[in-house]
Amino acid sequence: MVKDFQIQSYLRDVPDFPKPGIIFKDITPLLANPEIRRQVVDEIAGHYQNQQLDAIAAIEARGFIFGTLLADALNVPFIPVRKSGKLPYHKIQEEYSLEYGTASIEMHIDAIPVGARVLIHDDLLATGGTASAAANMIQRLGGLVGGFSFIINLAFLPGAQNLEARYGLKPHYLVSYS
Amino acid sequence: MVKDFQIQSYLRDVPDFPKPGIIFKDITPLLANPEIRRQVVDEIAGHYQNQQLDAIAAIEARGFIFGTLLADALNVPFIPVRKSGKLPYHKIQEEYSLEYGTASIEMHIDAIPVGARVLIHDDLLATGGTASAAANMIQRLGGLVGGFSFIINLAFLPGAQNLEARYGLKPHYLVSYS
Repeated sequence: MVKDFQIQSYLRDVPDFPKPGIIFKDITPLLANPEIRRQVVDEIAGHYQNQQLDAIAAIEARGFIFGTLLADALNVPFIPVRKSGKLPYHKIQEEYSLEYGTASIEMHIDAIPVGARVLIHDDLLATGGTASAAANMIQRLGGLVGGFSFIINLAFLPGAQNLEARYGLKPHYLVSYS
Repeated sequence: MVKDFQIQSYLRDVPDFPKPGIIFKDITPLLANPEIRRQVVDEIAGHYQNQQLDAIAAIEARGFIFGTLLADALNVPFIPVRKSGKLPYHKIQEEYSLEYGTASIEMHIDAIPVGARVLIHDDLLATGGTASAAANMIQRLGGLVGGFSFIINLAFLPGAQNLEARYGLKPHYLVSYS
């Protein structure tokens, strides 16, 4: 699929961001191209079109970008998963590990209809910590995790293996860097 | 237009968020309804369909949600405007005032093709400080501000007047609270 539309040429390597030694995969050139952006949405939506999905939960902030487009393409609710303190209504929280210390994300307590199958979307899969935290919240709220969708997978990190081991679901992504 | 699709009934009032005395307009019920969400996009895109717009610049994080859908509907580039420290590449910064102190937002230096007419989108218009900061960056990068688009206007604050006075453009919004 990657060969079809050359998504890699619309991802920019930014060395030493957010810190020395890290090569950041910048999606802004992809966002600036309406045709390629649409192909990305069509590709992901096509992958899920025959699966029953009742909602997309997307992780702030870059996950909102394609998460919204996916929710529109699949005609399902869009559920924002946000950094702590951002969502206004009653909510639950889940911590995840960072390299040093922890951070947490939140969801509204009424975000998930009971039994809903929810696709989790973010732009990049690294260790899978944020996606796992979102998955745990969906389960705590009575939903089912229907899948994990990313644009980019960093295959030198164990995110894909971690998610498959914990949830029995193979993450879907369009580009993988090893 | 508001009468047509009753957007207000999909906005939830959350009292005392983010602090006592503020009634927060929560858009998550709107995001959870694919049909109403699509009507919001169609309504805004319809307003701009006969205007020359070359890109949508949307402000993190809630602005990303409808900003992406608008960029898709209008088939133009999507340009993220982000909180300081989030964009990876070379960038410019603009400060804006908060009730106490200041904050700043950033854009990539190559985000705006020279002469491009850019529509600025965010979910809510309050004082207009963030939108003004985005507008100033677009102008510094050689672009033109093509318009200001919001879902909600807080008419008891001077955002609409401020933006019109500074940029000669009447902001567009779907719902206004006085």
